[in-house]
Amino acid sequence: MTPAKQHLVDEGDATTTGGPADTKGVVALLERGRTLATPVLRAAVDRLAPPMDTVAAYHFGWIDMEGRPSAADGGKAVRPALALLSAEAAGALPETGVPGAVAVELVHNFSLLHDDLMDGDEQRRHRDTVWKVHGPAQAILVGDALFALAGEILLELGTAEAGRATRRLTLATRRLIDGQAQDISYEHRDQVTVEECLEMEGNKTGALLACAASIGAVLGGADDRTADALESYGYHLGLAFQAVDDLLGIWGDPGATGKQTWSDLRQRKKSLPVTAALGFEGEAAKRLAELMAADAKKSQAEFEDFDEAEFAERAALIEQAGGREWTSQEAQRQHTTAVAALDSIDLPGRVREQFAALADFVVVRQR
Amino acid sequence: MTPAKQHLVDEGDATTTGGPADTKGVVALLERGRTLATPVLRAAVDRLAPPMDTVAAYHFGWIDMEGRPSAADGGKAVRPALALLSAEAAGALPETGVPGAVAVELVHNFSLLHDDLMDGDEQRRHRDTVWKVHGPAQAILVGDALFALAGEILLELGTAEAGRATRRLTLATRRLIDGQAQDISYEHRDQVTVEECLEMEGNKTGALLACAASIGAVLGGADDRTADALESYGYHLGLAFQAVDDLLGIWGDPGATGKQTWSDLRQRKKSLPVTAALGFEGEAAKRLAELMAADAKKSQAEFEDFDEAEFAERAALIEQAGGREWTSQEAQRQHTTAVAALDSIDLPGRVREQFAALADFVVVRQR
Repeated sequence: MTPAKQHLVDEGDATTTGGPADTKGVVALLERGRTLATPVLRAAVDRLAPPMDTVAAYHFGWIDMEGRPSAADGGKAVRPALALLSAEAAGALPETGVPGAVAVELVHNFSLLHDDLMDGDEQRRHRDTVWKVHGPAQAILVGDALFALAGEILLELGTAEAGRATRRLTLATRRLIDGQAQDISYEHRDQVTVEECLEMEGNKTGALLACAASIGAVLGGADDRTADALESYGYHLGLAFQAVDDLLGIWGDPGATGKQTWSDLRQRKKSLPVTAALGFEGEAAKRLAELMAADAKKSQAEFEDFDEAEFAERAALIEQAGGREWTSQEAQRQHTTAVAALDSIDLPGRVREQFAALADFVVVRQR
Repeated sequence: MTPAKQHLVDEGDATTTGGPADTKGVVALLERGRTLATPVLRAAVDRLAPPMDTVAAYHFGWIDMEGRPSAADGGKAVRPALALLSAEAAGALPETGVPGAVAVELVHNFSLLHDDLMDGDEQRRHRDTVWKVHGPAQAILVGDALFALAGEILLELGTAEAGRATRRLTLATRRLIDGQAQDISYEHRDQVTVEECLEMEGNKTGALLACAASIGAVLGGADDRTADALESYGYHLGLAFQAVDDLLGIWGDPGATGKQTWSDLRQRKKSLPVTAALGFEGEAAKRLAELMAADAKKSQAEFEDFDEAEFAERAALIEQAGGREWTSQEAQRQHTTAVAALDSIDLPGRVREQFAALADFVVVRQR
């Protein structure tokens, strides 16, 4: 059992049902999302004029830097799976959710293109980021184009449902942007509370997963109450997802995550385990605060020169202060809240089970 | 008579009716657009979370760099005037066009924020640009937020008309982005044809004016045929507008335009007069091509060190080759095509006259 898993899953807990045998349902669900959404996504991106189509194809991992076809890691595809299941939640065919799945993926990737540039991140999914390969202007331009495409794909359906879906997607996008604005402002602050961190993660991760979980239902004609309940499920699923991400960002297995050891510590990210730890009383929290105050005065280059032992010391202090345990429990709490949100609405039994299975998958994942 | 006017207006031509007395109708039309749209635009921008609200308010000229209220030049406000008149074209009240006017202004300003950053432009409307004052990340972020707000403002109307209007706006935004992509790619090319320049300007300027001219009508319940005719009017109006802009960019009066002398030449812009001149036969065109080939090898700093006489020489060659005359005639041609597009639909007489008066204003303006 890897460290992350050890802290996330108590034996006998609901999430442990997601073992190798039980996750099969989830694997099929993710695969269905990928299979149905990817061709439509690719056709949408093909609408872009050169060179934006090529830049976007590189970003999505469909071609490499030289323009040759490639099959890069396309990510976990949780959002498309949610959007299709969401359509079934409204009694519609999964296919009804496809334009929603594609629009959400377009918005997600718009935000990645812009965030990577704003944050100066040079790598994503083991590859150089777009601004690094094609320059800042292309990262801005292609991000803008993907955002516009998202509305185009939905609104060309020409239905009232498409209008409602686009409105929800637009509001989610505004929250995504709010979250990025908070993330940037937190970087320049000495102190960030755990509540502020949760708010930021709710905007950055929760809002779009909320949209993914409801957009298929909206396209399938669901009423606002149903859509709101599915949004609530998706929002808390997003917070659970992000709590796990924050754990993996410190204690994840680099072989599985594809990130460096102590990845988030190297970037001085004020993630949940860190902000939670600093919120606790005790010697470890005090020592961590002192170290971090000293770290804040260092340049990024000086900081990256740290040896492994110095990062390990910080990680150990976060754990001793209680930040790791709290975050692990927070993932469970959000998981519980997400699944409970589904109880307020009528759902076909199989759909409810699959939403629950996806929630389980999100908290036990290793990457 | 200023040089620009001299070349634009032949005595007795339709556009000369736009003299000091006749432009009064246009002044009132522009003022109405400003008066009705600005409060709604400001309320929309107020929805942004800090610090994005402040950055946006600075961009719009509502506050200065220190956050004090200011009353900077808000621009000509042709787009809001068009959107309101467009509602009347469908028999609706001008107020019906207000959300459309606001959404179009939001998209226009989203593109300004991003374009200024991509192009490295440090000044806009006599003030430092947002990326220069608040940094690149805020320019990206606030641009994104304005784009999202545009959809939000329209779609919260919750009507089928709003869905159609948002779709048209989204398609116009994609063309705007295509135009910026072309503009960037042309900068790195030795040769740009006049056709390519027109295509780029149609995307960058025509598409959004087309949307402004039709969005009010769409919100007012107009059918697609009416909306398409109004789009055609707006598109050609945009091309006329841009042709005049390109003339002012070389021969405009710096006191009126607020730009440097020979502004577009200093930036080595491949605008209509330049591309048209290079497309003609003759000694002047040949000499211009030689000079520009040599200029292309210089750094921007070397180039800016040129004295006035060197820019004046280039401007004179463009004029001798026929680029000035051609562009001036092109503005007239586009003006004629714009007004003719209105003939295919039934419009209240006063509305048609005001559309025509706006077209006249666009081609005789000095700034």
